[in-house]
Amino acid sequence: MQDSFNDPVPLAALIGALRRLPGVGVKSARRMAYHLLQHDPAGAQRLAQALTDAVARLGHCQRCNTFTEDPVCAVCLSPRRDATQLCVVESPADQNMIEASHTYRGLYYVLMGRLSPLEGIGPDELRFGPLLERAADGTVQEVILATSFTAEGDVTAHYLSEALRARGLTVTRLARGVPAGGELEYVDAGTIAWALAERRA
Amino acid sequence: MQDSFNDPVPLAALIGALRRLPGVGVKSARRMAYHLLQHDPAGAQRLAQALTDAVARLGHCQRCNTFTEDPVCAVCLSPRRDATQLCVVESPADQNMIEASHTYRGLYYVLMGRLSPLEGIGPDELRFGPLLERAADGTVQEVILATSFTAEGDVTAHYLSEALRARGLTVTRLARGVPAGGELEYVDAGTIAWALAERRA
Repeated sequence: MQDSFNDPVPLAALIGALRRLPGVGVKSARRMAYHLLQHDPAGAQRLAQALTDAVARLGHCQRCNTFTEDPVCAVCLSPRRDATQLCVVESPADQNMIEASHTYRGLYYVLMGRLSPLEGIGPDELRFGPLLERAADGTVQEVILATSFTAEGDVTAHYLSEALRARGLTVTRLARGVPAGGELEYVDAGTIAWALAERRA
Repeated sequence: MQDSFNDPVPLAALIGALRRLPGVGVKSARRMAYHLLQHDPAGAQRLAQALTDAVARLGHCQRCNTFTEDPVCAVCLSPRRDATQLCVVESPADQNMIEASHTYRGLYYVLMGRLSPLEGIGPDELRFGPLLERAADGTVQEVILATSFTAEGDVTAHYLSEALRARGLTVTRLARGVPAGGELEYVDAGTIAWALAERRA
Protein backbone atom coordinates (compact mmCIF):
# COMPACT_ATOMS: atom_id res chain seq x y z
CA MET A 1 0.00 0.00 0.00
CA GLN A 2 1.43 3.39 -0.88
CA ASP A 3 1.29 6.06 1.79
CA SER A 4 -0.92 8.29 -0.34
CA PHE A 5 -3.60 5.58 -0.28
CA ASN A 6 -5.48 4.90 2.92
CA ASP A 7 -9.10 4.44 3.89
CA PRO A 8 -10.57 7.66 5.29
CA VAL A 9 -10.68 7.51 9.09
CA PRO A 10 -14.47 7.11 9.50
CA LEU A 11 -14.48 4.29 6.92
CA ALA A 12 -11.58 2.48 8.60
CA ALA A 13 -13.35 2.88 11.98
CA LEU A 14 -16.58 1.43 10.56
CA ILE A 15 -14.78 -1.53 8.97
CA GLY A 16 -12.94 -2.14 12.26
CA ALA A 17 -16.18 -2.05 14.27
CA LEU A 18 -17.96 -4.41 11.85
CA ARG A 19 -15.08 -6.88 12.07
CA ARG A 20 -15.83 -7.40 15.76
CA LEU A 21 -19.08 -9.11 14.80
CA PRO A 22 -18.82 -12.90 15.02
CA GLY A 23 -18.16 -14.52 11.65
CA VAL A 24 -17.21 -11.27 9.93
CA GLY A 25 -13.73 -11.01 8.41
CA VAL A 26 -12.12 -7.98 6.83
CA LYS A 27 -13.53 -8.61 3.35
CA SER A 28 -17.09 -9.02 4.63
CA ALA A 29 -16.69 -5.95 6.84
CA ARG A 30 -15.59 -3.89 3.82
CA ARG A 31 -18.49 -5.16 1.75
CA MET A 32 -20.93 -4.31 4.55
CA ALA A 33 -19.46 -0.83 4.99
CA TYR A 34 -19.60 -0.04 1.25
CA HIS A 35 -23.12 -1.37 1.01
CA LEU A 36 -24.37 0.72 3.92
CA LEU A 37 -22.64 3.90 2.77
CA GLN A 38 -23.50 3.57 -0.89
CA HIS A 39 -26.91 1.95 -0.90
CA ASP A 40 -28.42 2.02 2.56
CA PRO A 41 -27.44 5.00 4.75
CA ALA A 42 -30.91 4.78 6.31
CA GLY A 43 -30.15 1.16 7.26
CA ALA A 44 -26.87 2.30 8.82
CA GLN A 45 -28.67 4.88 10.95
CA ARG A 46 -31.32 2.35 11.90
CA LEU A 47 -28.64 -0.13 12.94
CA ALA A 48 -26.81 2.52 14.98
CA GLN A 49 -30.06 3.36 16.78
CA ALA A 50 -30.94 -0.31 17.33
CA LEU A 51 -27.52 -1.00 18.84
CA THR A 52 -27.76 1.97 21.19
CA ASP A 53 -31.33 1.08 22.20
CA ALA A 54 -30.62 -2.60 22.74
CA VAL A 55 -27.57 -1.96 24.91
CA ALA A 56 -29.42 0.70 26.92
CA ARG A 57 -32.76 -1.07 27.33
CA LEU A 58 -32.08 -4.80 27.55
CA GLY A 59 -31.11 -6.52 30.75
CA HIS A 60 -31.35 -10.05 32.06
CA CYS A 61 -34.53 -11.60 33.45
CA GLN A 62 -34.11 -11.97 37.21
CA ARG A 63 -35.57 -15.46 37.04
CA CYS A 64 -34.47 -17.08 33.77
CA ASN A 65 -31.54 -14.84 32.75
CA THR A 66 -32.77 -14.24 29.18
CA PHE A 67 -32.69 -10.79 27.58
CA THR A 68 -35.65 -8.65 28.57
CA GLU A 69 -36.64 -5.02 29.00
CA ASP A 70 -38.44 -5.83 32.23
CA PRO A 71 -37.17 -7.16 35.56
CA VAL A 72 -38.88 -10.51 34.81
CA CYS A 73 -39.60 -11.72 31.26
CA ALA A 74 -43.01 -12.59 29.78
CA VAL A 75 -42.41 -16.36 29.79
CA CYS A 76 -41.52 -16.39 33.51
CA LEU A 77 -44.60 -14.26 34.28
CA SER A 78 -47.00 -16.38 32.22
CA PRO A 79 -49.58 -18.16 34.43
CA ARG A 80 -50.03 -20.80 31.73
CA ARG A 81 -46.55 -22.20 32.27
CA ASP A 82 -45.81 -25.30 34.34
CA ALA A 83 -43.46 -24.07 37.07
CA THR A 84 -42.49 -27.60 38.12
CA GLN A 85 -40.32 -28.07 35.02
CA LEU A 86 -37.20 -26.03 34.31
CA CYS A 87 -35.40 -26.39 30.99
CA VAL A 88 -31.77 -25.22 30.89
CA VAL A 89 -30.62 -23.91 27.49
CA GLU A 90 -27.44 -22.22 26.30
CA SER A 91 -29.00 -19.27 24.47
CA PRO A 92 -32.29 -17.53 23.65
CA ALA A 93 -31.94 -19.06 20.15
CA ASP A 94 -32.07 -22.55 21.67
CA GLN A 95 -35.08 -21.53 23.78
CA ASN A 96 -36.68 -20.38 20.53
CA MET A 97 -36.18 -23.79 18.94
CA ILE A 98 -37.72 -25.59 21.90
CA GLU A 99 -40.70 -23.22 21.87
CA ALA A 100 -41.11 -23.89 18.15
CA SER A 101 -41.58 -27.61 18.89
CA HIS A 102 -44.82 -26.73 20.77
CA THR A 103 -44.25 -29.61 23.18
CA TYR A 104 -42.89 -27.91 26.27
CA ARG A 105 -45.01 -25.97 28.75
CA GLY A 106 -42.48 -25.48 31.54
CA LEU A 107 -40.11 -22.64 32.34
CA TYR A 108 -36.54 -21.94 31.24
CA TYR A 109 -33.16 -20.93 32.47
CA VAL A 110 -30.87 -19.40 29.84
CA LEU A 111 -27.16 -19.89 30.57
CA MET A 112 -25.99 -17.38 27.92
CA GLY A 113 -23.05 -19.60 27.09
CA ARG A 114 -21.53 -22.93 28.06
CA LEU A 115 -18.51 -24.14 29.94
CA SER A 116 -15.42 -23.74 27.81
CA PRO A 117 -12.15 -24.19 29.69
CA LEU A 118 -10.20 -23.35 26.51
CA GLU A 119 -11.85 -19.92 26.36
CA GLY A 120 -11.59 -19.45 30.12
CA ILE A 121 -15.35 -19.82 30.69
CA GLY A 122 -15.90 -21.71 33.94
CA PRO A 123 -18.83 -22.02 36.37
CA ASP A 124 -18.04 -18.57 37.79
CA GLU A 125 -18.20 -16.86 34.39
CA LEU A 126 -21.54 -18.53 33.57
CA ARG A 127 -22.84 -17.68 37.05
CA PHE A 128 -24.41 -21.03 37.90
CA GLY A 129 -25.33 -19.73 41.39
CA PRO A 130 -28.63 -18.11 40.38
CA LEU A 131 -29.62 -21.25 38.42
CA LEU A 132 -28.94 -23.56 41.37
CA GLU A 133 -30.91 -21.24 43.68
CA ARG A 134 -33.74 -21.02 41.16
CA ALA A 135 -33.90 -24.81 40.75
CA ALA A 136 -34.00 -25.28 44.53
CA ASP A 137 -36.99 -22.92 45.01
CA GLY A 138 -39.22 -25.79 46.13
CA THR A 139 -41.53 -25.60 43.11
CA VAL A 140 -39.22 -27.03 40.47
CA GLN A 141 -39.38 -30.83 40.38
CA GLU A 142 -37.50 -31.65 37.22
CA VAL A 143 -34.59 -29.91 35.52
CA ILE A 144 -34.25 -30.75 31.82
CA LEU A 145 -30.73 -30.11 30.55
CA ALA A 146 -31.00 -29.00 26.92
CA THR A 147 -27.43 -27.92 26.29
CA SER A 148 -25.85 -28.84 22.95
CA PHE A 149 -24.57 -32.33 22.25
CA THR A 150 -21.05 -31.02 21.72
CA ALA A 151 -18.05 -31.59 23.98
CA GLU A 152 -18.65 -28.23 25.68
CA GLY A 153 -22.40 -28.72 25.95
CA ASP A 154 -21.88 -32.19 27.43
CA VAL A 155 -19.38 -30.90 29.99
CA THR A 156 -21.84 -28.15 30.95
CA ALA A 157 -24.66 -30.69 31.33
CA HIS A 158 -22.47 -33.04 33.35
CA TYR A 159 -21.36 -30.30 35.74
CA LEU A 160 -24.92 -29.02 36.24
CA SER A 161 -26.28 -32.51 36.62
CA GLU A 162 -23.91 -33.23 39.53
CA ALA A 163 -24.69 -29.94 41.25
CA LEU A 164 -28.46 -30.30 40.81
CA ARG A 165 -28.60 -33.97 41.90
CA ALA A 166 -26.63 -33.02 45.02
CA ARG A 167 -29.58 -30.71 45.81
CA GLY A 168 -32.01 -33.63 45.48
CA LEU A 169 -33.51 -32.59 42.14
CA THR A 170 -34.58 -34.88 39.29
CA VAL A 171 -32.33 -34.13 36.34
CA THR A 172 -32.97 -35.26 32.76
CA ARG A 173 -31.22 -34.64 29.46
CA LEU A 174 -32.71 -34.39 25.94
CA ALA A 175 -32.63 -37.73 24.12
CA ARG A 176 -29.84 -38.38 21.67
CA GLY A 177 -30.54 -40.39 18.55
CA VAL A 178 -31.38 -40.39 14.88
CA PRO A 179 -33.06 -37.10 13.83
CA ALA A 180 -36.69 -37.14 12.67
CA GLY A 181 -36.70 -37.92 8.96
CA GLY A 182 -33.10 -39.14 9.20
CA GLU A 183 -32.02 -41.94 6.90
CA LEU A 184 -29.47 -44.16 8.61
CA GLU A 185 -27.21 -44.08 5.56
CA TYR A 186 -26.69 -40.34 6.00
CA VAL A 187 -26.45 -40.19 9.80
CA ASP A 188 -22.97 -39.99 11.30
CA ALA A 189 -21.52 -42.99 13.12
CA GLY A 190 -21.45 -41.25 16.50
CA THR A 191 -25.18 -40.61 16.35
CA ILE A 192 -25.87 -44.23 15.36
CA ALA A 193 -23.74 -45.42 18.28
CA TRP A 194 -25.79 -43.26 20.68
CA ALA A 195 -29.07 -44.39 19.15
CA LEU A 196 -28.02 -48.03 19.60
CA ALA A 197 -26.80 -47.58 23.16
CA GLU A 198 -30.00 -45.75 24.15
CA ARG A 199 -32.39 -47.96 22.16
CA ARG A 200 -35.87 -48.38 23.58
CA ALA A 201 -38.13 -51.39 23.90
CA MET B 1 -44.47 -19.85 18.60
CA GLN B 2 -46.75 -19.26 21.56
CA ASP B 3 -47.97 -15.75 22.15
CA SER B 4 -46.29 -15.54 25.54
CA PHE B 5 -42.92 -16.00 23.85
CA ASN B 6 -41.52 -13.17 21.74
CA ASP B 7 -38.21 -11.38 21.47
CA PRO B 8 -38.21 -8.14 23.47
CA VAL B 9 -38.74 -5.17 21.12
CA PRO B 10 -35.17 -3.76 21.25
CA LEU B 11 -33.73 -7.22 20.54
CA ALA B 12 -36.10 -7.81 17.61
CA ALA B 13 -35.20 -4.34 16.26
CA LEU B 14 -31.48 -5.08 16.53
CA ILE B 15 -31.84 -8.45 14.79
CA GLY B 16 -33.91 -6.79 12.05
CA ALA B 17 -31.32 -4.05 11.54
CA LEU B 18 -28.43 -6.55 11.40
CA ARG B 19 -30.30 -8.61 8.80
CA ARG B 20 -30.08 -5.70 6.37
CA LEU B 21 -26.33 -6.20 6.17
CA PRO B 22 -25.31 -8.03 3.00
CA GLY B 23 -24.77 -11.76 3.56
CA VAL B 24 -26.45 -11.80 6.97
CA GLY B 25 -29.47 -14.07 7.45
CA VAL B 26 -31.70 -14.34 10.47
CA LYS B 27 -29.54 -16.94 12.27
CA SER B 28 -26.36 -14.90 11.82
CA ALA B 29 -28.18 -11.73 12.89
CA ARG B 30 -29.34 -13.46 16.09
CA ARG B 31 -25.87 -14.74 16.81
CA MET B 32 -24.42 -11.26 16.29
CA ALA B 33 -27.04 -9.65 18.51
CA TYR B 34 -26.52 -12.15 21.35
CA HIS B 35 -22.76 -11.80 21.06
CA LEU B 36 -22.84 -8.01 21.24
CA LEU B 37 -25.32 -7.89 24.12
CA GLN B 38 -23.74 -10.65 26.15
CA HIS B 39 -20.04 -10.34 25.47
CA ASP B 40 -19.31 -7.02 23.77
CA PRO B 41 -21.62 -4.13 24.67
CA ALA B 42 -18.62 -1.81 24.21
CA GLY B 43 -18.27 -3.16 20.66
CA ALA B 44 -21.97 -2.47 20.06
CA GLN B 45 -21.56 1.13 21.17
CA ARG B 46 -18.41 1.50 19.10
CA LEU B 47 -20.24 0.14 16.05
CA ALA B 48 -23.19 2.49 16.61
CA GLN B 49 -20.81 5.44 16.81
CA ALA B 50 -18.82 4.31 13.75
CA LEU B 51 -22.03 3.98 11.71
CA THR B 52 -23.24 7.44 12.71
CA ASP B 53 -19.83 9.00 12.05
CA ALA B 54 -19.32 7.32 8.71
CA VAL B 55 -22.74 8.32 7.38
CA ALA B 56 -22.30 11.89 8.62
CA ARG B 57 -18.68 12.46 7.62
CA LEU B 58 -18.06 10.51 4.42
CA GLY B 59 -18.94 11.83 1.00
CA HIS B 60 -17.69 11.15 -2.51
CA CYS B 61 -14.49 12.56 -3.99
CA GLN B 62 -15.42 15.18 -6.58
CA ARG B 63 -12.85 13.78 -8.97
CA CYS B 64 -12.73 10.00 -8.50
CA ASN B 65 -16.02 9.32 -6.68
CA THR B 66 -14.45 7.22 -3.88
CA PHE B 67 -15.44 7.70 -0.23
CA THR B 68 -13.62 10.58 1.42
CA GLU B 69 -14.03 13.12 4.21
CA ASP B 70 -12.65 15.88 1.98
CA PRO B 71 -13.95 17.40 -1.26
CA VAL B 72 -11.10 15.66 -3.13
CA CYS B 73 -9.38 12.48 -1.89
CA ALA B 74 -5.68 12.06 -1.08
CA VAL B 75 -4.96 9.92 -4.16
CA CYS B 76 -6.42 12.52 -6.52
CA LEU B 77 -4.44 15.28 -4.77
CA SER B 78 -1.13 13.40 -4.79
CA PRO B 79 1.45 15.12 -7.05
CA ARG B 80 3.27 11.80 -7.47
CA ARG B 81 0.44 10.31 -9.51
CA ASP B 82 0.47 10.12 -13.29
CA ALA B 83 -2.60 12.07 -14.36
CA THR B 84 -2.48 10.77 -17.93
CA GLN B 85 -3.77 7.34 -16.87
CA LEU B 86 -7.23 6.77 -15.41
CA CYS B 87 -8.18 3.36 -14.06
CA VAL B 88 -11.92 2.64 -13.72
CA VAL B 89 -12.84 0.24 -10.88
CA GLU B 90 -16.14 -0.93 -9.41
CA SER B 91 -15.38 -0.33 -5.74
CA PRO B 92 -12.81 1.03 -3.28
CA ALA B 93 -11.98 -2.62 -2.49
CA ASP B 94 -10.94 -3.16 -6.13
CA GLN B 95 -8.90 0.04 -6.02
CA ASN B 96 -7.22 -1.38 -2.92
CA MET B 97 -6.24 -4.56 -4.75
CA ILE B 98 -4.72 -2.61 -7.64
CA GLU B 99 -2.78 -0.41 -5.21
CA ALA B 100 -1.53 -3.54 -3.48
CA SER B 101 0.06 -4.72 -6.76
CA HIS B 102 2.40 -1.67 -6.61
CA THR B 103 2.45 -1.46 -10.39
CA TYR B 104 0.08 1.41 -11.11
CA ARG B 105 0.95 5.08 -10.66
CA GLY B 106 -2.06 6.67 -12.39
CA LEU B 107 -5.36 7.93 -11.05
CA TYR B 108 -8.70 6.21 -10.50
CA TYR B 109 -12.38 6.55 -11.03
CA VAL B 110 -14.57 4.48 -8.68
CA LEU B 111 -17.96 3.54 -10.16
CA MET B 112 -19.42 2.35 -6.82
CA GLY B 113 -21.22 -0.45 -8.62
CA ARG B 114 -21.65 -1.90 -12.09
CA LEU B 115 -24.36 -2.04 -14.69
CA SER B 116 -26.97 -4.58 -13.69
CA PRO B 117 -30.17 -4.44 -15.74
CA LEU B 118 -31.68 -7.17 -13.54
CA GLU B 119 -31.30 -4.98 -10.45
CA GLY B 120 -32.36 -1.86 -12.35
CA ILE B 121 -28.88 -0.33 -12.29
CA GLY B 122 -28.31 1.44 -15.60
CA PRO B 123 -25.92 4.18 -16.78
CA ASP B 124 -28.05 6.82 -15.02
CA GLU B 125 -27.90 5.06 -11.63
CA LEU B 126 -24.11 4.71 -11.86
CA ARG B 127 -23.81 8.32 -13.03
CA PHE B 128 -21.37 7.81 -15.89
CA GLY B 129 -21.60 11.53 -16.76
CA PRO B 130 -18.91 12.68 -14.30
CA LEU B 131 -16.59 9.87 -15.43
CA LEU B 132 -16.94 10.79 -19.12
CA GLU B 133 -16.32 14.45 -18.28
CA ARG B 134 -13.34 13.57 -16.12
CA ALA B 135 -11.83 11.34 -18.83
CA ALA B 136 -12.22 14.11 -21.41
CA ASP B 137 -10.37 16.72 -19.31
CA GLY B 138 -7.53 16.90 -21.84
CA THR B 139 -4.92 15.40 -19.48
CA VAL B 140 -6.10 11.79 -19.47
CA GLN B 141 -4.64 9.85 -22.39
CA GLU B 142 -5.55 6.27 -21.50
CA VAL B 143 -8.52 4.85 -19.64
CA ILE B 144 -7.89 1.38 -18.18
CA LEU B 145 -11.15 -0.49 -17.56
CA ALA B 146 -10.64 -2.70 -14.50
CA THR B 147 -14.20 -3.85 -13.90
CA SER B 148 -14.75 -7.51 -12.96
CA PHE B 149 -14.61 -10.28 -15.52
CA THR B 150 -18.21 -11.23 -14.83
CA ALA B 151 -21.19 -10.75 -17.14
CA GLU B 152 -22.08 -7.48 -15.39
CA GLY B 153 -18.49 -6.24 -15.25
CA ASP B 154 -18.05 -7.03 -18.94
CA VAL B 155 -21.24 -5.18 -19.90
CA THR B 156 -20.07 -2.18 -17.87
CA ALA B 157 -16.68 -2.23 -19.56
CA HIS B 158 -18.26 -2.59 -23.01
CA TYR B 159 -20.62 0.32 -22.43
CA LEU B 160 -17.88 2.59 -21.10
CA SER B 161 -15.49 1.54 -23.84
CA GLU B 162 -17.95 2.68 -26.55
CA ALA B 163 -18.65 5.98 -24.82
CA LEU B 164 -14.97 6.73 -24.18
CA ARG B 165 -13.77 5.76 -27.68
CA ALA B 166 -16.47 8.04 -29.12
CA ARG B 167 -14.68 10.85 -27.26
CA GLY B 168 -11.37 9.93 -28.91
CA LEU B 169 -9.77 8.33 -25.84
CA THR B 170 -7.49 5.28 -25.77
CA VAL B 171 -9.30 2.56 -23.83
CA THR B 172 -7.69 -0.63 -22.51
CA ARG B 173 -8.94 -3.53 -20.40
CA LEU B 174 -7.05 -5.67 -17.85
CA ALA B 175 -5.67 -8.85 -19.43
CA ARG B 176 -7.60 -12.08 -18.99
CA GLY B 177 -5.69 -15.32 -18.60
CA VAL B 178 -4.33 -17.97 -16.28
CA PRO B 179 -3.71 -16.52 -12.77
CA ALA B 180 -0.15 -16.22 -11.45
CA GLY B 181 0.77 -19.57 -9.88
CA GLY B 182 -2.20 -21.20 -11.61
CA GLU B 183 -1.85 -24.83 -12.64
CA LEU B 184 -3.76 -25.49 -15.85
CA GLU B 185 -5.33 -28.62 -14.38
CA TYR B 186 -7.18 -26.52 -11.81
CA VAL B 187 -8.10 -23.53 -13.98
CA ASP B 188 -11.65 -23.43 -15.37
CA ALA B 189 -12.27 -24.02 -19.06
CA GLY B 190 -13.52 -20.48 -19.70
CA THR B 191 -10.25 -19.01 -18.45
CA ILE B 192 -8.23 -21.45 -20.57
CA ALA B 193 -10.30 -20.48 -23.62
CA TRP B 194 -9.54 -16.78 -22.98
CA ALA B 195 -5.87 -17.45 -22.37
CA LEU B 196 -5.67 -19.33 -25.69
CA ALA B 197 -7.57 -16.71 -27.65
CA GLU B 198 -5.41 -13.92 -26.24
CA ARG B 199 -2.10 -15.80 -26.36
CA ARG B 200 0.99 -13.71 -26.95
CA ALA B 201 4.03 -14.23 -29.13
